[in-house]
Amino acid sequence: MTLQFNVLAQDGQARKGRITTPRGSFTTPCFMPVGTRAAVRTLDTSDLEALNPPVVLANTYHLMMRPGPEVVEQMGGVHGFTGWSGHVLTDSGGYQVFSLDPKVDDDGATFRSTYDGTSHRFTAERVVDVQLQLGSDIQMVLDVCPPSEAPATVQRQTVDRTADWAVRARRRFLEVEGHNAGANQFGIVQGGTDPALRAESAARTVEVGFDGYAVGGLSVGESPGQMMVALAATAPLLPQDQPRYFMGLGDPIGLLECVALGVDMFDCVLPTRLARHGTALTWEGRLNLGNSSLANDDRPVDPHFPASPAARYSRAYLRHLFNVDEPSAARMLTLHNVAWLLALMEEAQDAIATGTLDRLIAKTAEAWG
Amino acid sequence: MTLQFNVLAQDGQARKGRITTPRGSFTTPCFMPVGTRAAVRTLDTSDLEALNPPVVLANTYHLMMRPGPEVVEQMGGVHGFTGWSGHVLTDSGGYQVFSLDPKVDDDGATFRSTYDGTSHRFTAERVVDVQLQLGSDIQMVLDVCPPSEAPATVQRQTVDRTADWAVRARRRFLEVEGHNAGANQFGIVQGGTDPALRAESAARTVEVGFDGYAVGGLSVGESPGQMMVALAATAPLLPQDQPRYFMGLGDPIGLLECVALGVDMFDCVLPTRLARHGTALTWEGRLNLGNSSLANDDRPVDPHFPASPAARYSRAYLRHLFNVDEPSAARMLTLHNVAWLLALMEEAQDAIATGTLDRLIAKTAEAWG
Repeated sequence: MTLQFNVLAQDGQARKGRITTPRGSFTTPCFMPVGTRAAVRTLDTSDLEALNPPVVLANTYHLMMRPGPEVVEQMGGVHGFTGWSGHVLTDSGGYQVFSLDPKVDDDGATFRSTYDGTSHRFTAERVVDVQLQLGSDIQMVLDVCPPSEAPATVQRQTVDRTADWAVRARRRFLEVEGHNAGANQFGIVQGGTDPALRAESAARTVEVGFDGYAVGGLSVGESPGQMMVALAATAPLLPQDQPRYFMGLGDPIGLLECVALGVDMFDCVLPTRLARHGTALTWEGRLNLGNSSLANDDRPVDPHFPASPAARYSRAYLRHLFNVDEPSAARMLTLHNVAWLLALMEEAQDAIATGTLDRLIAKTAEAWG
Repeated sequence: MTLQFNVLAQDGQARKGRITTPRGSFTTPCFMPVGTRAAVRTLDTSDLEALNPPVVLANTYHLMMRPGPEVVEQMGGVHGFTGWSGHVLTDSGGYQVFSLDPKVDDDGATFRSTYDGTSHRFTAERVVDVQLQLGSDIQMVLDVCPPSEAPATVQRQTVDRTADWAVRARRRFLEVEGHNAGANQFGIVQGGTDPALRAESAARTVEVGFDGYAVGGLSVGESPGQMMVALAATAPLLPQDQPRYFMGLGDPIGLLECVALGVDMFDCVLPTRLARHGTALTWEGRLNLGNSSLANDDRPVDPHFPASPAARYSRAYLRHLFNVDEPSAARMLTLHNVAWLLALMEEAQDAIATGTLDRLIAKTAEAWG
């Protein structure tokens, strides 16, 4: 059985859906926290089980470097290694590799490890194989990730190479019977901020035929307006009956705006990174625990989110913990921020079902605009 | 009501006992984890509740500097601030202050804050007042803490000054009706490694009349043999019907040896500090997760301690988390190490009740000797 996607409700282009794989099922639109090195930073697997996210990400590049795919495979894949029994999606590591000034040719990319300087090579096929070793439920193809300011000729080459690698990755995945291992594979649409190039990339990716489709190469430095135009040119061209995943977006308004354009899945380090810097997501916008006005504030981080895993602690206490570098502070805010985004996505699901997504966007914009 | 101590069983000089205060009761001998800045490093209050230690320490010096005793008092004391409803013992901060090269006179000690360089003064009375603001169940007097290599003249002066400050601290505590606030106050015996000076200090401290007695100034650099001789000269002179607290000891064999000499309470940063450096307490001795032989080890940290809060994770996974600097690794090992020492103390209680403490010491020495 491959991945199934059922649309449960629609509100304009927005869809509430259900994704089912051999591992189980979850409701969309959804936010997926990022566990780069087989752990969401500051959290352990029991914490994740309490948060109950639909999917957790892990990163192929980082796990290939440490502890190595053989170790993860021997320990039962990411699931056996971590004890997490929910869905795991592995990013291909392309984004990381392309940030390392790699030598790229038509066949793949050669780069030096940030861990120990050793040389490694990623190809479309190799990345499929490693992700099967990692045992993820959803794996991503290797794509070319250009900087947002890349010129048109580079974006053109990016789309061509990404399309070529998509064909090879899919062939490899089906050859090694990835589906039989319970795995699914998503293609990735590139094309920068050029609507025509986006449309071409979408068509060429869909032609290959994947279990779902991601929009990559956005939220990388372009303006919010450019991002939305590029997404609007892409989403309608992706199959209605398959999931759509916007890579690397996590700000509350951005999420809902993309949901309105028909996106089903999101990931981002934003909630966890902000948490480690002492910033909480709240219905009053960002709350910085460094603010001295919180020194005697006995309210919880977000009084409008009583279900927060950090709700038992006052702002004053959490501020103190940050001030004196207690590691528990970052963990508490990470739990809060992830829970807050998961709850926002549940609100979005409900809003789509009741045809009130616009109202939720307005409410969110009021707090975050 | 002041603190009550009931001896439930004896095995030689070792006692199994029960301490009752207005907050509740707990069984001794016991280990008390250290929450210096109103948190045990890497843990939050929910973690502590799961570990269920009899008492948690907090430090007067550190909380006076950050966030300040007024803030803690406004938030309901350490209990209200942290949400921890079990026993809290506050160290006087003398140990910290005497490590800061203070100007000491008969009246008190003046020192500069390690946080911002500002000047502060500790006196016997001031430290009582601050600990009442912190709302601890057991507070410690301000004592003089000399280095272990201090000459005899300094140890002599230490005992005299500590005895003088004990009188003043007790007077202050009773004047401000500390007992009515549910608080209890422990005196501290000094005297270095000189048995005669220890005996004198014990007698002078007991003469003041406290709710319990601590042995300070040991486990600060002297040899284990010197430490045991000094303790043996002290413990029998302390009241049989009151608790005895050995400050700053946490190694498994040392704990049990001191239990055998009649000590009831211990605290130490050892289990939490070792954890943050990747070292686990186990029934096979210290286990260093940096050891490369653990890369594929699918056993839990201590196979002989299935109740460990980290038992669900393999050594391989925890080693990986340490290797890639995931903060959850230190938290998992902290949970494990504290739980391991709490369990050891429960074993000691059972061994005393059944007259088998010697056997437990032999078993522990086999793993740790």
